[in-house]
Amino acid sequence: MDDTALAGRRGRVQAAAVAAGVDAVLVTPGPDLRYLTGYDATPLERLTCLLLPAQGSPLLVVPELEQPAAVATVGTDLAILPWSETDDPVDLCIRHLGGRVGRVAVDDRMWAEKVLRFRDALPGSTILAAGGLLTDQRMRKDAAEVENLALAGAAIDEVHSRMGEWLRPGRTEREVALAIERAILASGHDRVDFVIVASGPNGASPHHAPSRRIITPGDTVVVDIGGTMPSGYCSDSTRTYAVGRPSAAALEQYEVLMNAQQRAIEAVRPGVSAESVDAAARDVIDAAGLGHLFVHRTGHGIGVETHEHPYIVTGNRQVLEAGMAFSVEPGIYDPGRHGARIEDIVVVTDSGRRRLNNRPHELVVL
Amino acid sequence: MDDTALAGRRGRVQAAAVAAGVDAVLVTPGPDLRYLTGYDATPLERLTCLLLPAQGSPLLVVPELEQPAAVATVGTDLAILPWSETDDPVDLCIRHLGGRVGRVAVDDRMWAEKVLRFRDALPGSTILAAGGLLTDQRMRKDAAEVENLALAGAAIDEVHSRMGEWLRPGRTEREVALAIERAILASGHDRVDFVIVASGPNGASPHHAPSRRIITPGDTVVVDIGGTMPSGYCSDSTRTYAVGRPSAAALEQYEVLMNAQQRAIEAVRPGVSAESVDAAARDVIDAAGLGHLFVHRTGHGIGVETHEHPYIVTGNRQVLEAGMAFSVEPGIYDPGRHGARIEDIVVVTDSGRRRLNNRPHELVVL
Repeated sequence: MDDTALAGRRGRVQAAAVAAGVDAVLVTPGPDLRYLTGYDATPLERLTCLLLPAQGSPLLVVPELEQPAAVATVGTDLAILPWSETDDPVDLCIRHLGGRVGRVAVDDRMWAEKVLRFRDALPGSTILAAGGLLTDQRMRKDAAEVENLALAGAAIDEVHSRMGEWLRPGRTEREVALAIERAILASGHDRVDFVIVASGPNGASPHHAPSRRIITPGDTVVVDIGGTMPSGYCSDSTRTYAVGRPSAAALEQYEVLMNAQQRAIEAVRPGVSAESVDAAARDVIDAAGLGHLFVHRTGHGIGVETHEHPYIVTGNRQVLEAGMAFSVEPGIYDPGRHGARIEDIVVVTDSGRRRLNNRPHELVVL
Repeated sequence: MDDTALAGRRGRVQAAAVAAGVDAVLVTPGPDLRYLTGYDATPLERLTCLLLPAQGSPLLVVPELEQPAAVATVGTDLAILPWSETDDPVDLCIRHLGGRVGRVAVDDRMWAEKVLRFRDALPGSTILAAGGLLTDQRMRKDAAEVENLALAGAAIDEVHSRMGEWLRPGRTEREVALAIERAILASGHDRVDFVIVASGPNGASPHHAPSRRIITPGDTVVVDIGGTMPSGYCSDSTRTYAVGRPSAAALEQYEVLMNAQQRAIEAVRPGVSAESVDAAARDVIDAAGLGHLFVHRTGHGIGVETHEHPYIVTGNRQVLEAGMAFSVEPGIYDPGRHGARIEDIVVVTDSGRRRLNNRPHELVVL
């Protein structure tokens, strides 16, 4: 990210704060801070906090020992104020905000201990979650962000294309997961965010943690993987594999799932609601009598965070616009037997959608 | 962790809540949840929350899609209540707490968006940070926890013992960091928590992120690494290496540092204050006229989280007791030139202290 683009993002948050009657936005390490400054600080007990007054200059408050790392990222683009180990950083922030603290928004991921310290130190102020002040902007990707997501998608596709190297009978889920982690880094990601390898009956647990279960012939295996690229943008893609010939029931359910995922992707276009995309997948699975086995929403937004707005879920009437990027990932989970999920990231275009994951959708028999 | 030990921990938090006049403690994914249930859930936007009423039975509220993963960890030891994608989980939690919600404590790491949703849904209640309700217990390790930390210490020592395989002139900090990450996993850790490889002038940034800088002869290199073991307990140890012969100034400062770290370790015993251990290191560095280059506290507690109580810092009058475990890690940072840090985890014993990291303290010339 160049400094001008980051300054533009901060300016738009400030404008949104003015419009919402918010006097200051406080942002601690996490996706919002990365989005607004490029600074990928680890969330820790010591306070690092971007002070973004509705009007005026932003200031990055950092522990003295983090100052060189902060300067290395933000350079001279942003004023930095260090505090030493025996200072009170909350007090320091409040003094710098001056009188502008009637309504204070904190980033959605700020730790409770910090939220409640700001609340206690600002007895006359109202503390609220930043929410839309950040998410309204973050969920609308510009062309550069879409390209970063496309590069992330191509990188994770490359890992899926190599699955036959690792997914073999006799190996444990953990062994396969470790090989995948290495491949995620080798494919150009900076960081592995998650690796799900869910074989046989474990496939019925959507967020299964890779276990010591040994993969056996006849298993279907759900592989859901993602990481963060040097750009800060994330990948996330699921394919379901078969090791040897799966059961007739698994194959039948997979056909339904593939159809549901395809219908949902085709439903993506500007002007429709997020929930209508969920319904497009759900209708197909319901019609096959399997609706009770599809126990989660159809998707989530993605950007500098793996899960962000817009969520593709019943009840979300958010109208889709060009530049919104999200997963389309229906699943069918048959407890005690098997599970399957297919996931692509798509981005809404002016006339429809662009898929950022392009591996085949068919059950890959290894 | 066996179920009885976990139930004991929850019971002690409940007793502490009664004593503090707190009606319920709410714990979302993170170190507190791992400590109380063994459940290593990823913090996500969907609410997972342990409801711990001051009196009565605990309940784990989880998203329906996480239920199989939660059951796989907590078994039948803990009641689990799933919510489906279109339920309001905050409302569900509050209904289950019934009338017991005058003062509600939330775990210190709970995300702001959740803290503020609970606050808004409980207009008559006071929300506070759990703080001491958890930390008073977590910072006093029992024998099994100390053994887990000792195993973590031995595993990270093994990684340091292999540093000569990777730390060579011509390699970038990132290349070395990647090799270290693999070795951390190979040594028995489940997860890499952080890898700092700070060479030459980068050593003056205590939390430097491994960069593309090429390691060159004459560099000193600060290597601060840690991970989480299958037990859930963490390792954290720093050594400073020299690639070829370092400058006279670096050698001189290193002698001061080694002495300071040794004095601080010797100061650890039951009955003294946390700040007195900090002072023991600081006095040595101050006496050498280098106090302005020691820009952070001397240490932090460690357990199921890398940084936890007690903090070894000026102003912390916490009296040390047997079973408290923390880092002793003074550093000297000479901006633009070089830096050095030596870090061991120690645990307070009945009569003194036990070091859980046992690699030599001398500057290791590779």
